[in-house]
Amino acid sequence: MKNEAQPFQLTLLGVSGALPARGLFPSAQALTIGNRAYLIDCGEGAQIQMQALGISPLRIHQIFISHLHGDHFYGLIGLLGSMALAGRDKPLDIFGPRALEEIIQVQLKHVGPVPFPLRFQPVDPGKHQLIYENKAIEVYTLPLIHRSPAAGFLFREKPRLRKMRPEMIAAHDIPYQVIPAIKAGADYQAADGSLIPNAALTLDPPLPRSYAYCSDTAFNENLPALVKGVDLLYHEATFCDDREDLAAMTGHSTARQAALIAQRAGVGHLVLGHYSSRYPDFSPFLAEAREVFPRTSLGMDGAVFRVPLNSAQTDPSSPEGELH
Amino acid sequence: MKNEAQPFQLTLLGVSGALPARGLFPSAQALTIGNRAYLIDCGEGAQIQMQALGISPLRIHQIFISHLHGDHFYGLIGLLGSMALAGRDKPLDIFGPRALEEIIQVQLKHVGPVPFPLRFQPVDPGKHQLIYENKAIEVYTLPLIHRSPAAGFLFREKPRLRKMRPEMIAAHDIPYQVIPAIKAGADYQAADGSLIPNAALTLDPPLPRSYAYCSDTAFNENLPALVKGVDLLYHEATFCDDREDLAAMTGHSTARQAALIAQRAGVGHLVLGHYSSRYPDFSPFLAEAREVFPRTSLGMDGAVFRVPLNSAQTDPSSPEGELH
Repeated sequence: MKNEAQPFQLTLLGVSGALPARGLFPSAQALTIGNRAYLIDCGEGAQIQMQALGISPLRIHQIFISHLHGDHFYGLIGLLGSMALAGRDKPLDIFGPRALEEIIQVQLKHVGPVPFPLRFQPVDPGKHQLIYENKAIEVYTLPLIHRSPAAGFLFREKPRLRKMRPEMIAAHDIPYQVIPAIKAGADYQAADGSLIPNAALTLDPPLPRSYAYCSDTAFNENLPALVKGVDLLYHEATFCDDREDLAAMTGHSTARQAALIAQRAGVGHLVLGHYSSRYPDFSPFLAEAREVFPRTSLGMDGAVFRVPLNSAQTDPSSPEGELH
Repeated sequence: MKNEAQPFQLTLLGVSGALPARGLFPSAQALTIGNRAYLIDCGEGAQIQMQALGISPLRIHQIFISHLHGDHFYGLIGLLGSMALAGRDKPLDIFGPRALEEIIQVQLKHVGPVPFPLRFQPVDPGKHQLIYENKAIEVYTLPLIHRSPAAGFLFREKPRLRKMRPEMIAAHDIPYQVIPAIKAGADYQAADGSLIPNAALTLDPPLPRSYAYCSDTAFNENLPALVKGVDLLYHEATFCDDREDLAAMTGHSTARQAALIAQRAGVGHLVLGHYSSRYPDFSPFLAEAREVFPRTSLGMDGAVFRVPLNSAQTDPSSPEGELH
């Protein structure tokens, strides 16, 4: 129940590499946190996949584009068009490379404007910094190593207030006005003058959950420090070991390198994607990665990964995404 | 066998209206004539559908874009990118509205150029004129009535040479050098001075086949004269009768109006498409159109319509597309 009320859920809309093959769609993901969805990259056909997978564009208010290779953003203009046709009026933030604005605006000039505010938020792909926050989450950029300047994105829930133990309200006759302060960590001065410590009044809240998206990138030794301990990591694996040379040359990673990042960062669960069309099947990616980091899944179009809402009593180093 | 050797085959890549729904892709079609394929409109995801349906981008050298609404061309930039990744070096002609060049070039400026010549061929949507021809076919524009200036396209095979009756070559000892002239219609002056009429030496060749694409358009009384007797007509049917007002207002047609065009033009077979997402199922479109024009099919993503290679002995008014 808790899990459904406060979902933290990644839906893969497309896991193909640059050249779509075997019916896979190019890079796009929807991260659902609470009642909002965040779109991460928007390859061609993302809106068709969202439709098929039941993710309403109306729940999306922020879109994050990693870089200007077509397989990561060619679906954006079509999604904007469909939002317009659906009568959207709420503003939409688009975080990504500066040139994205020119690309979109030239098309809207000829096709017709959208009836909602489009707010382009240029991102510096070279910096690790906070680029967006709301009441529930913070989003940071993750500098990647690629031929086109690219940034990954780290999504982190903000710490929750402590949970009030309801039986303590009655026991100490606590007026409701002071409860917000207690949830924020305050002790309580009772009517008889005694001080009741916060630890006796509250329970630990669920831990903030986190997700990191790292695509496209060559093996990047700086990444583990930036994504340390995230619950869920998506890391591109365009090639297997047999093409490590090609990976380095094209600014991509092998499945083993993705697993090394996950291992060094001590993440909860690793999801692979962005497979090169040259591979007839993807099971070697999984085998190779699991040799290094067993808690790895093969990302597939339409797959959903949920990070459960754990209490603080759970070991924070071992939450696992559930694969559906 | 003849049919396979000289196919004339329409593959529907997408039949959705402007807002993709029910998993349908937006407008795109591949017309295969002989060993070439012609792409007609290129909505988002067209390349993914081509991949799924086994239509190689390498066989495409001409692309025809009807107008600048996104659901008819947003898939073009991604297709060009994949052609580049596949190492294409052959030129590509793109026929369509003039502004298409700016839209594509702005994107290539930021994403990187393609390694093959892109030849933009601006089309005047207000005129019915020849815009392309090669040895096998001619392509004409069809002025449509829409909110954005739009042109349909008429594909027509060129007349074939007459077929030599092989037994006559031996009977009259005809040297091979004069056979091309006989195939072109010449009589033959035999060695004994007698004149053998062409009709005795040759058979009628197969009739030229034809296909017309009409989307998007309001009911257009001028169309039947332009598409008279085509073997196969694709005509948009965004709405049914119940929304005739909305069709007129938005520059679209109802299924009945599409059928009226087919009836007045005396076409071989009508295929409907471009259905509005407001309809939960499309069977009413078919029922409504067949009341007026029985030889109607409901176009669906992935459907293939073949026009057989008929001899002249077949009644040219009744060739029917085969639905697969």
